[in-house]
Amino acid sequence: MRKMQKRVYVVAADTTVFLGTGRKEFHPKKPRPGLEHYIAEAGKGVLAQISDPEAVDEGVVGNFMASRFNRQGHLGAMMAVVHPSLAGKPSLRVEGACASGGLAVVTAIKSVLAGQADLSLVVGVEVQNTVKAIYGADILAGAGHYAAERKSGHAYYFPAKFSDRAGEYKKRFGAERTWAAMGRWYEQAVRNARLNPKAQEFHNTTTDLFSTHQTMAPNPKSFCEHINVLDCSKVSDGAAAILVASEEGLKRTGRKKSEAVELVGFGHSTADLTAQPDDLTVLDTTRRAAREALEMAGVAVRDVGVFEVHDCFTISGILACEALGLAGHGEGADYVLSGATRRDGPTPVNTSGGLVGFGHPTGASGVRMAADLWRQLTGRAGDDQVKIPSERPHGIFASMGGNDRTVVSCVFRRAA
Amino acid sequence: MRKMQKRVYVVAADTTVFLGTGRKEFHPKKPRPGLEHYIAEAGKGVLAQISDPEAVDEGVVGNFMASRFNRQGHLGAMMAVVHPSLAGKPSLRVEGACASGGLAVVTAIKSVLAGQADLSLVVGVEVQNTVKAIYGADILAGAGHYAAERKSGHAYYFPAKFSDRAGEYKKRFGAERTWAAMGRWYEQAVRNARLNPKAQEFHNTTTDLFSTHQTMAPNPKSFCEHINVLDCSKVSDGAAAILVASEEGLKRTGRKKSEAVELVGFGHSTADLTAQPDDLTVLDTTRRAAREALEMAGVAVRDVGVFEVHDCFTISGILACEALGLAGHGEGADYVLSGATRRDGPTPVNTSGGLVGFGHPTGASGVRMAADLWRQLTGRAGDDQVKIPSERPHGIFASMGGNDRTVVSCVFRRAA
Repeated sequence: MRKMQKRVYVVAADTTVFLGTGRKEFHPKKPRPGLEHYIAEAGKGVLAQISDPEAVDEGVVGNFMASRFNRQGHLGAMMAVVHPSLAGKPSLRVEGACASGGLAVVTAIKSVLAGQADLSLVVGVEVQNTVKAIYGADILAGAGHYAAERKSGHAYYFPAKFSDRAGEYKKRFGAERTWAAMGRWYEQAVRNARLNPKAQEFHNTTTDLFSTHQTMAPNPKSFCEHINVLDCSKVSDGAAAILVASEEGLKRTGRKKSEAVELVGFGHSTADLTAQPDDLTVLDTTRRAAREALEMAGVAVRDVGVFEVHDCFTISGILACEALGLAGHGEGADYVLSGATRRDGPTPVNTSGGLVGFGHPTGASGVRMAADLWRQLTGRAGDDQVKIPSERPHGIFASMGGNDRTVVSCVFRRAA
Repeated sequence: MRKMQKRVYVVAADTTVFLGTGRKEFHPKKPRPGLEHYIAEAGKGVLAQISDPEAVDEGVVGNFMASRFNRQGHLGAMMAVVHPSLAGKPSLRVEGACASGGLAVVTAIKSVLAGQADLSLVVGVEVQNTVKAIYGADILAGAGHYAAERKSGHAYYFPAKFSDRAGEYKKRFGAERTWAAMGRWYEQAVRNARLNPKAQEFHNTTTDLFSTHQTMAPNPKSFCEHINVLDCSKVSDGAAAILVASEEGLKRTGRKKSEAVELVGFGHSTADLTAQPDDLTVLDTTRRAAREALEMAGVAVRDVGVFEVHDCFTISGILACEALGLAGHGEGADYVLSGATRRDGPTPVNTSGGLVGFGHPTGASGVRMAADLWRQLTGRAGDDQVKIPSERPHGIFASMGGNDRTVVSCVFRRAA
C-alpha cells in the first residue's frame, strides 16, 4: 500500500475574487486583469502569511487552457511575478483539464516527499472571460477527445455530456427527485457563496433560489436537454494558491502547527480519454481516487467533517457525493434533498460555494478546494466557517478533469 | 545539497520517426497520424522491451502546445492508448514550452524518489504540421510573454529572438568565426542525422552542407537578420518515450542492469518569463540547471562522454556548449570549429542529429534527449553509436524552454 514517507503540510492559502458574470465589478467590454495579475495576487497572498518569502524552494502552476484563452503557455516561468526570488528556482506547469489544480497540489506533494523541496508554492489559475461562451465551449472541449468527438458533439460539449448524465440518472432513479436535488444543490451553492465575498455569486440577490431553478425547464433547442444554465458552474477568471511544506519547511515559515493542516493521504486516477464512461450515473474515476486517498490516510468517509467536490454541474455534485461514499448508488439525490450536504448538515459540502457558487476558473479549482479545506480546518474561513465536529476532524477534496477522466483527491486533517 | 535519496534508472527508450519537410514520406497535403498514434507508437516501443507492461505504475506526458496545434488538452488521460492497463493509473501532462519533455523526465524521477511509483512511463509528444509555418510561429510565441511581446515582436518570434542572440555574439566575438561555427553546427547535425533512420534530415542528400549554409546570407526582409533557415530546427511531428524505474522497478522489468542507465543528478531552473535575458550571449538558465545536475552527480564536465543540447537554432547549440562548460564564454564558436563536438571528436554533441538534424517535435525533444543518452550509454545506438571512453562514462542533456526561461538537465551513467 502507498504510504506517506514523511509528514506533508499545507501551511498557508489564499484565493482571489473569482470574476465573471454575476460579480458587480465585472463588465464584459471593460479591460480586466490578466494571468500575471491573478498569479501574483494569489501567490503574494500566501507569501504574506510566512516570515521569509525567499525560503520557498519551487513553484508549481496548475492551468488548463491559457494556451487558447490567452495564447500563453510556459506559466511555470511566470512565478517570478509572485516574488523575484522565485526566478531561478524550479517551476513548472501541470495540466489535466479541470483537474489541473488538483494535479498541481499532488505534484508539489511529490516534490516534498521526494526530498527535492521543503516549501513548494502552488498556484492554480485560469482567465477565461477572453472569448464568448460558445468559443469557450470549444476551448474546453479540449478536455475530451477532440479529434474523435468534437465535430459530432454538441456545440456546448461539456454541458451536453453532463446533461446526458443527468438524463440517465433521472431515468434510472426518478426524474422528479433528481431535478429537485439539482435545484437544492444550486440553492445551497449560492447560499454558501453569499457568505464568501470572493465568490462569483456573492452578489446574487435572487430571493427564492430553489423555485427559480425548478421553473427554468431544460430546453434542448436553446441549450441542453436535461440541465438548465443554473446547473452550470461559472466561466470565471481567478487564481488560488497554497504553500505545501515538509516538517522542516513548516518550521521555516514561522507558522504554528495549529495554523497548518497535514496531508494524510492522496489519490490520483485516470480513465481512458478516448473511451466513454461505462455507466453515466457513476463517477468511477472520482470514486477510485477518493478511495485511494482515504485508504492511504487510513480513515473512512465517516471520519471526514468537511468536503469539497467538483460540481462543474449540479448533477456532478450529486454524483460526486455518491463517489465519495456519502450516499449509495442512486441515493445521492435523496441525500442532497435531506439537507445533509448543507452547511448546517452533518456533512457540509462546498462550503464556500463550490464551482456553481464560488466560480470555476478551471485550472484554479483544485487548488481552491485545498485552500478552502485549509481555511475550514484551521478555523480561518470567516463568514463561511462551518463547525467541524471533533470526531470528524478530516477534510477531503476530489478535483475532476473532463468527463471523470482525471481525478485527484486529498485528505487533510488539522495539524497540532 | 540536493541528493538522490535512492537509485533511479532509465531502463528502456524509444522514439518515432520525426516527421516533417525533408522526410520522403511527408506530404503537406496528405493526411498524417495524430497525437494518439505517436503516443501509442513511442509508448509501445518501450513496453515491448520489458517483460510485463502491466507493471508500469503511472504515466507522464510532456507536451507544449497540442491545445493549439490540435485543440487537444488532457493528454495525461490519453496514455491508455499505449496499454489498456494504464487506464485507471495516475497520469498527467507537464508543460514548460520546449522544455516540456525535460520536465516530464524530472516529474517521473520525483515520483520514483517520492516512493509513489517504481515504474513511470514518460512520453513526450508534439504534432505541429497541422498549421502553416507562420501560424505555427504565433503558437510557439506562447513560450514567451505573449501579452507583452507578441504584437511588437517579429512575425517569426523565436527565430528573431535567437537571431538577436547570434547578432550579439557575432558583434562581440567575431562575425566570421560565428557564422562559420553556425555552418559547421548545421553540417554536423545533418551528418549525424544521416546515420539515424528516424531523423527528419535522414534523407538529406546535399553534398556540401557547410558551403550551402555559408552562402545563404541572412535576409531580414524575407526572414531574420542574423540567421538563415538552415540555422533553425525543424517543425516536426513525433514522440519519444522512456521508462524511469526504481531499483525494485528495474527488477520487475526483467532487464539486466547493463541494459539500463542510472540517473545520477538532475537540475531544473527557470528565469522570469516577463523579463529579458541580461546578456544575449549567455544561456544563464541552461548553465544553472547543468551545474546543479553535475553537482548533484558529483562529477565535472570532463567526466562526461556524450552530450545532448537544445539546438533549436545553431547559435543555441554553440551557446549551450558554453553553458555546459565545454568552452568558455565567447569560445564556443572556436570549440565547434575545432571539431570537438563532432561524433569523432572528444565531446560528441547531439549524436543522432539534435533538433536541427533529428527534428524538434517540441514537447518530445527533452524525452528524446534522455532516450538518446540511454541508447549511447548502453551501446544500443546502432549506426549513430559513438565510442564513449571509459574515463568519461557519463552523459548529460539540457532541455531548454523558450528563450532560456525553463531548463532541465540530467546526468546519467551506465548502470552495472
